[in-house]
Amino acid sequence: CYEPMVKVAGGIAHYCPLRPTKTEGVTSSKDWILDPKELESKFNQNTKALIVNNPNNPLGKVFSRDELLMMADLCKKYDTICLSDEVYEWMVYDDNKHIKIASLPGMFERTVTMGSAGKTLSATGWKLGWGIGPEHLIAPMQVLHQNCTYNCPTPVQEAVAGALEFEIDQMDQPDKCYFFSLAKELQPKRDKLAKICQEVGLSPVVPEGGYFMMVSTGNLKTDLPDDGTDDPRDFKFVRWMTTKLKLAAIPPSAFYHQEHKHLGENYVRFCFIKKDETIEAAGDILKKWFGSVKK
Amino acid sequence: CYEPMVKVAGGIAHYCPLRPTKTEGVTSSKDWILDPKELESKFNQNTKALIVNNPNNPLGKVFSRDELLMMADLCKKYDTICLSDEVYEWMVYDDNKHIKIASLPGMFERTVTMGSAGKTLSATGWKLGWGIGPEHLIAPMQVLHQNCTYNCPTPVQEAVAGALEFEIDQMDQPDKCYFFSLAKELQPKRDKLAKICQEVGLSPVVPEGGYFMMVSTGNLKTDLPDDGTDDPRDFKFVRWMTTKLKLAAIPPSAFYHQEHKHLGENYVRFCFIKKDETIEAAGDILKKWFGSVKK
Repeated sequence: CYEPMVKVAGGIAHYCPLRPTKTEGVTSSKDWILDPKELESKFNQNTKALIVNNPNNPLGKVFSRDELLMMADLCKKYDTICLSDEVYEWMVYDDNKHIKIASLPGMFERTVTMGSAGKTLSATGWKLGWGIGPEHLIAPMQVLHQNCTYNCPTPVQEAVAGALEFEIDQMDQPDKCYFFSLAKELQPKRDKLAKICQEVGLSPVVPEGGYFMMVSTGNLKTDLPDDGTDDPRDFKFVRWMTTKLKLAAIPPSAFYHQEHKHLGENYVRFCFIKKDETIEAAGDILKKWFGSVKK
Repeated sequence: CYEPMVKVAGGIAHYCPLRPTKTEGVTSSKDWILDPKELESKFNQNTKALIVNNPNNPLGKVFSRDELLMMADLCKKYDTICLSDEVYEWMVYDDNKHIKIASLPGMFERTVTMGSAGKTLSATGWKLGWGIGPEHLIAPMQVLHQNCTYNCPTPVQEAVAGALEFEIDQMDQPDKCYFFSLAKELQPKRDKLAKICQEVGLSPVVPEGGYFMMVSTGNLKTDLPDDGTDDPRDFKFVRWMTTKLKLAAIPPSAFYHQEHKHLGENYVRFCFIKKDETIEAAGDILKKWFGSVKK
């Protein structure tokens, strides 16, 4: 989804996907790895920026300090800026820690960190986010913003500023602060969905962050009906599941560039920021169908 | 300001400005004319769209039925669509009538009419507008919108929908309906500003619509200080006026393409959607300075 923006900016996008090291059974987004050699092969003296997404889409991977240091070293070696999309920064589970790449040595002055009120305050549809960075990167961004977006919706700005101030004041009381309570509320939902998938023989990639779960459908012998398209398998699967089973999911290959779509097409991506009853109802559908499908 | 959008869409923008038929004394936006021959010379078999702005920026011209019919005929003759920016539709003064070009014979099916909550409900900064048109034009717009803007701010949508429903219910009581009362409130402000300009020897172009007034500065013998730029005269004038006189205005040449900037550079553009005291305070500044400048 960054490609049109890179193109409009006169750039050429190169892609380096996370690749799975395990595909059998219940796995974790931790098992999907960025290959340092592959990543460095995308850099050269003309490289302007590294765009990184942490926690990542579509997997929910939370990059470790070592992985971030590796990316930071490349940014410094090739003198590029870093655009770090961290909209899921507060939705991190278990012992995983979200580390801002801008906090690593020598990175603040070359990083713009993007955040989202939609994600952090569960206010999707409010159309407000922010960029944090040094003045020499923010100032030209403001010029562009002024001439494209012009302004952000002012009533929403007022509401979001108030909410952020309110929550920041409560950060020393984790039980009260929304930044922490949201992840605490989501983790059991993640676990409930993972358990359901396991029970029906679908292999979940349990995410370290975010509120989506990739689930492998590769071992299902379901014959998907020919829907008259050349779409990747996951599009066909999701279309069939949505219309026939009345259960919606996102086809993960949409997140990948053409050459990497195969990495997503044996998965579907479920959203678990849902009422428990909704997750259970999804479970009933999955059990009814996939309990009986040959594997 | 349409040029980047036309470029991104793979098109080439051609410009046909309104040209003044009178420049001395108090004139009207009615005195600025679209030359039908000049306009037709911009059309050929590759022409995809006519973009028209009515009431127009920066002059506040309200196109007459005859002028709109002339444009509509060109759209039909060259089989182009029409993108009609009508955000000032309710701010029309005297006996002028705003006519939607989409309401002319054969035009609905080729027109997208753009409106703005910011302008119609005096809620600039709310970032919400609308496009009205036939399904075959709106459907592809929705696809693009979904992939660029994604969605509009939902709290603002709810508020604007409520306000529009409320005002539409009152349209048979013009004294209560905001659509009509706003223009009634603005017309005396327009007249107050025009009178002030006249008194200090500045020639206003009294607008038929909108809430801005172009004012000629061409006959002022003021020597503008060299500000070290190659900007058009109106930019220098406005910069000087803003910093030295503490009176802000908009340089109209910003609205023109390079080849037509000369049409705007002997004007400044004042906003009159202001408290009466603010307009009077502007008058005091203008009287103090331009009462004493040689003309």
